[in-house]
Amino acid sequence: MSEATREERLDAVRAFAQTSPYYKSMGMELAEVAEGSVVLRVEIRPAHLNADGIVHGGVLPAIADGAMGNSLRTLHGAAAQVLTAEVHLHYLRPVTRGALLARGNVVQSGRRLSFAEVEITEESTGKAVARGSGVFVIDSAAG
Amino acid sequence: MSEATREERLDAVRAFAQTSPYYKSMGMELAEVAEGSVVLRVEIRPAHLNADGIVHGGVLPAIADGAMGNSLRTLHGAAAQVLTAEVHLHYLRPVTRGALLARGNVVQSGRRLSFAEVEITEESTGKAVARGSGVFVIDSAAG
Amino acid sequence: MSEATREERLDAVRAFAQTSPYYKSMGMELAEVAEGSVVLRVEIRPAHLNADGIVHGGVLPAIADGAMGNSLRTLHGAAAQVLTAEVHLHYLRPVTRGALLARGNVVQSGRRLSFAEVEITEESTGKAVARGSGVFVIDSAAG
Amino acid sequence: MSEATREERLDAVRAFAQTSPYYKSMGMELAEVAEGSVVLRVEIRPAHLNADGIVHGGVLPAIADGAMGNSLRTLHGAAAQVLTAEVHLHYLRPVTRGALLARGNVVQSGRRLSFAEVEITEESTGKAVARGSGVFVIDSAAG
Repeated sequence: MSEATREERLDAVRAFAQTSPYYKSMGMELAEVAEGSVVLRVEIRPAHLNADGIVHGGVLPAIADGAMGNSLRTLHGAAAQVLTAEVHLHYLRPVTRGALLARGNVVQSGRRLSFAEVEITEESTGKAVARGSGVFVIDSAAG
Repeated sequence: MSEATREERLDAVRAFAQTSPYYKSMGMELAEVAEGSVVLRVEIRPAHLNADGIVHGGVLPAIADGAMGNSLRTLHGAAAQVLTAEVHLHYLRPVTRGALLARGNVVQSGRRLSFAEVEITEESTGKAVARGSGVFVIDSAAG
Repeated sequence: MSEATREERLDAVRAFAQTSPYYKSMGMELAEVAEGSVVLRVEIRPAHLNADGIVHGGVLPAIADGAMGNSLRTLHGAAAQVLTAEVHLHYLRPVTRGALLARGNVVQSGRRLSFAEVEITEESTGKAVARGSGVFVIDSAAG
Repeated sequence: MSEATREERLDAVRAFAQTSPYYKSMGMELAEVAEGSVVLRVEIRPAHLNADGIVHGGVLPAIADGAMGNSLRTLHGAAAQVLTAEVHLHYLRPVTRGALLARGNVVQSGRRLSFAEVEITEESTGKAVARGSGVFVIDSAAG
């Protein structure tokens, strides 16, 4: 874990999410942030849809990766680079509209590898839409 | 496999990619299409980047899912809905700019489940950026 | 869900575990069984070890698959065949001896696909050793 | 890559497979070994079967992990410990008897992480039974 204080680390995650071009283009915002856990919120837009009106299968792992990566950033602060090594996602239910919440949690953050998990739910119903996990490498020397 | 002719099925994939709002928003285009195999091309834009200038970890599974889903669409035609059940991706190399090519191939398309694989390479160097696989359900009654 | 009563279904899982040659050869036994959830217990034997004295990487997904498959059998009864379509496992900690507990839980059991998750812990310390998930197909016509 | 000569490294893999208690108990033997690639052969025994006569879903990832781990051992020699971080497997076809061949190939072996892939086929027909991939950590200091 980084030597930055807890508040410095959480502020770094907030700043990362606010300045990331990708977050803007996806309509992702940080809804909650705590040590080892974040919630991203994404309002479904026409740009997320397939030609058949269903949210494209690529949108969910994108949100999932963001939620997991940020859950790890809360432990490692602004100087660390969080690199995804592997992402895995189960799709439980197709989605067409509304907003999605993705809760990412750190499972284990080790010297060489870190593990996180994610659950994506529909905001209006609370129903699970997807569940996944990932392997990450933290490059502390990046800053 | 659908009763549509081979050409009708490949045309349906081209039309799907051209009319999908998600493809436009991601800058994805269909570069090659054949029976059981497609190549998607994505030019990296500022909107794909993280705050640290690296392509966001969520961009690659999004492209991967698109390439695999379309490889299955070439076998099943316009009437079928291709639903992602699971996506898995290994990240081999971080990317910052240029264009990416994602080649999706059908591994097996069964009555209940279909399997596909994908490799994403850098267009300029041909180097592998990510490799993955997925499980899909084909809803032939969808049309 | 099968029309068999809850007790008939749980008994069928117990019988399956007791008569399965694979369970005997692996030293796996059913430690707990409830609707949608089971715990398998495996005492680590010399036959599970690699040449370097660490439990072989293949032992954990074997136990994981067993725990997830049986969690689904508790919902579908003796007549159903549970076929694994995909297994995914994260390894959190190497193990050398003692006993392992694998808790499998059904995440969702649908008409075409079912999803389950698993956590494997060291019995003596309760520490997580591995976490995973899987996709399964239930063949109700099998019986 | 280890400083041992190519032949020393391949011999180390042969010795590892021959002395591993797990390989004996599973009936796994090294059928081919080359730099970055191995084939394991497993004759299906009653001990691999479920109560319904189908090879248990846990047998295939066990073989898959062995084939991938050994493909990495061919690059790193006897002094290195190959630790599995993640395994992922698609099941393409149920198996009941005969012998299986698992070909493991190194995809990339980096300083921090290594990636491998595996295909399991039926020996008699050559048909693909399962395909998978994994993330590994090489502990060169282990020796």
